[in-house]
Amino acid sequence: MKKMRVGVCGASGYAGMELLKILKRHSQTEVVFLTSESHKNVKVGDFDPSLVDYQDFTYVSMEEESIYQNVDAVFLALPHEASALAAPKFLNKGIKVIDLSAAFRLRSIPLFEKVYKFKHHSAELVSKAVYGLTEIYREEIKKANLIANPGCYPTSALLPLIPLLKSKIIAPDHIIIDAKSGFSGRGRKADIPGLFIEMNENFYAYGIAGHRHKPEINQELSSAFEGKVTAAFTPHVLPVDRGIFSTIYIPSKENIAGQVLDEWEQFYQGEPFIRIYRKDLPQLKWVAHTNNVFMSAVYDEETQNLIVVSLIDNLVKGAAGQAVQNMNVMFGIEETEGLR
Amino acid sequence: MKKMRVGVCGASGYAGMELLKILKRHSQTEVVFLTSESHKNVKVGDFDPSLVDYQDFTYVSMEEESIYQNVDAVFLALPHEASALAAPKFLNKGIKVIDLSAAFRLRSIPLFEKVYKFKHHSAELVSKAVYGLTEIYREEIKKANLIANPGCYPTSALLPLIPLLKSKIIAPDHIIIDAKSGFSGRGRKADIPGLFIEMNENFYAYGIAGHRHKPEINQELSSAFEGKVTAAFTPHVLPVDRGIFSTIYIPSKENIAGQVLDEWEQFYQGEPFIRIYRKDLPQLKWVAHTNNVFMSAVYDEETQNLIVVSLIDNLVKGAAGQAVQNMNVMFGIEETEGLR
Amino acid sequence: MKKMRVGVCGASGYAGMELLKILKRHSQTEVVFLTSESHKNVKVGDFDPSLVDYQDFTYVSMEEESIYQNVDAVFLALPHEASALAAPKFLNKGIKVIDLSAAFRLRSIPLFEKVYKFKHHSAELVSKAVYGLTEIYREEIKKANLIANPGCYPTSALLPLIPLLKSKIIAPDHIIIDAKSGFSGRGRKADIPGLFIEMNENFYAYGIAGHRHKPEINQELSSAFEGKVTAAFTPHVLPVDRGIFSTIYIPSKENIAGQVLDEWEQFYQGEPFIRIYRKDLPQLKWVAHTNNVFMSAVYDEETQNLIVVSLIDNLVKGAAGQAVQNMNVMFGIEETEGLR
Amino acid sequence: MKKMRVGVCGASGYAGMELLKILKRHSQTEVVFLTSESHKNVKVGDFDPSLVDYQDFTYVSMEEESIYQNVDAVFLALPHEASALAAPKFLNKGIKVIDLSAAFRLRSIPLFEKVYKFKHHSAELVSKAVYGLTEIYREEIKKANLIANPGCYPTSALLPLIPLLKSKIIAPDHIIIDAKSGFSGRGRKADIPGLFIEMNENFYAYGIAGHRHKPEINQELSSAFEGKVTAAFTPHVLPVDRGIFSTIYIPSKENIAGQVLDEWEQFYQGEPFIRIYRKDLPQLKWVAHTNNVFMSAVYDEETQNLIVVSLIDNLVKGAAGQAVQNMNVMFGIEETEGLR
Repeated sequence: MKKMRVGVCGASGYAGMELLKILKRHSQTEVVFLTSESHKNVKVGDFDPSLVDYQDFTYVSMEEESIYQNVDAVFLALPHEASALAAPKFLNKGIKVIDLSAAFRLRSIPLFEKVYKFKHHSAELVSKAVYGLTEIYREEIKKANLIANPGCYPTSALLPLIPLLKSKIIAPDHIIIDAKSGFSGRGRKADIPGLFIEMNENFYAYGIAGHRHKPEINQELSSAFEGKVTAAFTPHVLPVDRGIFSTIYIPSKENIAGQVLDEWEQFYQGEPFIRIYRKDLPQLKWVAHTNNVFMSAVYDEETQNLIVVSLIDNLVKGAAGQAVQNMNVMFGIEETEGLR
Repeated sequence: MKKMRVGVCGASGYAGMELLKILKRHSQTEVVFLTSESHKNVKVGDFDPSLVDYQDFTYVSMEEESIYQNVDAVFLALPHEASALAAPKFLNKGIKVIDLSAAFRLRSIPLFEKVYKFKHHSAELVSKAVYGLTEIYREEIKKANLIANPGCYPTSALLPLIPLLKSKIIAPDHIIIDAKSGFSGRGRKADIPGLFIEMNENFYAYGIAGHRHKPEINQELSSAFEGKVTAAFTPHVLPVDRGIFSTIYIPSKENIAGQVLDEWEQFYQGEPFIRIYRKDLPQLKWVAHTNNVFMSAVYDEETQNLIVVSLIDNLVKGAAGQAVQNMNVMFGIEETEGLR
Repeated sequence: MKKMRVGVCGASGYAGMELLKILKRHSQTEVVFLTSESHKNVKVGDFDPSLVDYQDFTYVSMEEESIYQNVDAVFLALPHEASALAAPKFLNKGIKVIDLSAAFRLRSIPLFEKVYKFKHHSAELVSKAVYGLTEIYREEIKKANLIANPGCYPTSALLPLIPLLKSKIIAPDHIIIDAKSGFSGRGRKADIPGLFIEMNENFYAYGIAGHRHKPEINQELSSAFEGKVTAAFTPHVLPVDRGIFSTIYIPSKENIAGQVLDEWEQFYQGEPFIRIYRKDLPQLKWVAHTNNVFMSAVYDEETQNLIVVSLIDNLVKGAAGQAVQNMNVMFGIEETEGLR
Repeated sequence: MKKMRVGVCGASGYAGMELLKILKRHSQTEVVFLTSESHKNVKVGDFDPSLVDYQDFTYVSMEEESIYQNVDAVFLALPHEASALAAPKFLNKGIKVIDLSAAFRLRSIPLFEKVYKFKHHSAELVSKAVYGLTEIYREEIKKANLIANPGCYPTSALLPLIPLLKSKIIAPDHIIIDAKSGFSGRGRKADIPGLFIEMNENFYAYGIAGHRHKPEINQELSSAFEGKVTAAFTPHVLPVDRGIFSTIYIPSKENIAGQVLDEWEQFYQGEPFIRIYRKDLPQLKWVAHTNNVFMSAVYDEETQNLIVVSLIDNLVKGAAGQAVQNMNVMFGIEETEGLR
């Protein structure tokens, strides 16, 4: 069988490097180019000797004309603005695009421009992009040419909440998402707060009330509920390499924990990556290096809250893994290929 | 000046060992005995060579008669039931007791027996015990003979909330405390989940809805509010040695962040260990190995929540440090002595 | 194509669990049973929910008769003595055995019994076992029925040293191996020194002069050199999950670093897992979760020492990965299958 | 009693910040200024909110004239070249200088200039400087005006080796020092290799054969032996905040472990910070946040090596702690003051 030819733009960041590892295990793809503006003309072997299977690749620039030829699909692991500029160039050549940036996630252009603080260069494409939360939008993804791959925090919050809002098992008011992420979520940037000694044995909240993933989460919650939902969202950084653990508080006068677990099981029946966990509580380490999502629910009688926990690996299901899952769906490949 | 003579019961656990380190820096105390039932007759130097200043001490049993003589104060870092039994023996000899267990924290005996699942052996002492949250109960502590030193989670949650409930700046409804603790909070017990490889690169919630510190927190919140408060409380474990980070959600129709910061500053004016933090957000590492409490507040307009963070070292302000702070208050010693 | 049927004995320890993950990615094997004496009759899903692909397996005992039927190969991740007893039972049924314990590694029975302190129950099999250092003994492994899979430390020390002793580029005297291992090397046992808080932010040496891997290393070095070699070996524990980093000191009057690198490149030409690293120095994280070996060499003119570093993942190339590599060789499967 | 007035130059790096913490606990000093060229005119509270006792200090520049007036002693935690320039300015005003850089450690100017690659601006002061290894040079330190505070690796290697070379219990040949340091040893610089995700779960060697601490170590070993000693030295980085663990190999035909332990005990009799450890092996965590040195020795009969381990906290005994210890000696203060 002839392998699909795929390219990775922005292949020197953490999400891009995770993509490379996953694609190497994928039996039906061949990586044909890697781009990196900061490392163009550098051999991968000189940049990162641990990417042993790509030692002889050389990073090219997005300016390189050949990357727009003879390719089936491209992953964009670029800054938001660079993605907005690059996507139409590939689409115009008939190349399918899976964008890991936020460029095409928010359906409202004014909201996007307020949140991301730059003028959207490909606003006309936003309505054609499909939000790549695979388990929710699978049918649309099959037909899509442009995927807006979800953010890591949104993936962990939306997968448990969407079925509950769709089915109206929960009400949309006063939902609180207290999320904790591994360090890789902040990306590869050299600064003092990112140093080992600053993060090791440490933990903190950041972007309280103003994180960019909040409008993305609320857009999708509102869409599922078919009405406005405004959940609170607080991200924190954990001193671990990878993983997101979201603790979600939902007011409920009645004990709906059993109903919630049943609804999830029915909604996600047959899903290869969704794990409904009924015994005790799941742990972040269980999802590291996997595309799995663990979710669990407990009811607190005394305070009348349903408490949901949802766990993913931010680099896999929260980025590169879900991107490959989406590629598999788009091209009619077995959905778990490369993702075990 | 003659030094106070103090003893430490349960000196081979993490809180007991932290007490020893603090007492060594204290210019006005002399440690005169250490007990450990599991290590009785063992030299401290053979048990833990890092306790270099106590190498020549030998752990004795609580059965040892001499420990009840010629001592000014005793710290109990014992299991709850052992504390309940030991406290009257010291009190009867005129020795002041600072109990780090939960034995005397809950004022309702039936609630205590439901939560801790054993019959209270010294129920008559409960009403005489003072809850040792120093900044709140300082005047009572000065006159107390028996201190119920607060739990670590309660300390981190109560210090920011009590002034806000007392002043009615916040309402008592739907308060949510999402707390994250370092590993030392679980104590020194050998089991598979406690192994390095199980906790390293991991994170999880536990005891959702049913943790024993919830009634303790709500007792004190209700007392401050002079009315029933039922806050939700979810503890999690962080892969760090020490520290508690509580993220607290309080519904509020108006932006009260400024008012909250001002109230704290006024309420805690002159307090040596309370740090009201107005710039950005505080980090867990800042409080490690200190008796300090950092607190900060942000208002989320969109979801109408006040979000408070409160940080302590669970072994210091959450246990041994606050115990010594209380001892200082009881004996008229400068409150920061030994605690910098 | 019909898949090979394989069993894993001792599948609840760290090496056994790593085997399960690797075998799941292997396209030509089917795992047909898992044993665990401590968890017999327990469902894997109840023991470790992270082993998502084995949730419906139930651990059986080695007493279970059916495990000796209709199986092509078995991995023994058992205690040494249990392996010595189990191996003949499988071999007698024509089942090939890959033993991850030390039971068949030392060719001298008296030395074995001195080091491991029990009488060898299958001494007659020792001479038939092949030491499974794949790159060195590949031809013998092809024909073997019983593989003594090498220890983790020996794997990291032998792969760089054997070619240098065989070619006499280095002399056999005064070789020092200073090795550092991740925590998983100590296995799954609950005790105080293994607790997160004891190992986190810690590092220490253990078993100086007397570690059981020293005779294994020296047996193979002597065999390569065709003369007695007695290298010094000091193991240390690192506060990381996995990996072994060996720093090896070899006296040499001349600068042989270039010659050493060339010899390795020639000796290991075409080897899929051996990485000769000529630029700067390799890092432990590069080998985590891989079957790769990185090696590098520097000459210190001033002290006349060749300094070699050698890095592996102790659970993969140092245990489960090399075991699967050996299985692949034994059954004529592509050597990298399941191991990328 | 009037407190000594001390200043800290370079107070925004890790060693400078450690100095501030120690000086705060010191009953006989008052910190009167802090300098930082990169943060001049910045309030300490804005730079590092965890330095709670210095919140109201403002960093000044070394250009500020007032810092050279009315001060008893100054600590230089500056880059090597800046220290060489600053020392004479303070000395000329009669201010005693404790320099934590390498500027005055090497007694040979040509060697210094070769190793540190700049022309020494205060070469004439080198012969007046005393090497501040307190336990070895205490008498000279008492009379010194300029202290060259030892490097962290040298401190850990020299303290066990000097008594053995002085007494000729060991021979000077083929000594190998394999040293492992916590991350703080590399200082506060923002780069990709220093990021949490790069160092966490990692370990590596660096500067093999060419580290700048090698000539410093060998200068002092040769001085102790009264003959040339050329030990090998390989540094590695551990994924922990602090600590140095040196494993030292010394060839010896006879078992001298007992003799070595006895010699240390005699040589270091009465030393408050030296811990000769005869039972089992010491652990890095025992010395964290202390000025203690643990040392231990084992003989390996089979390979005829004495193996010594030596442990310190690189920021305390390896930098700021020893600096304060030296200040205490210089000013006739109790040597343990501020250092417990």
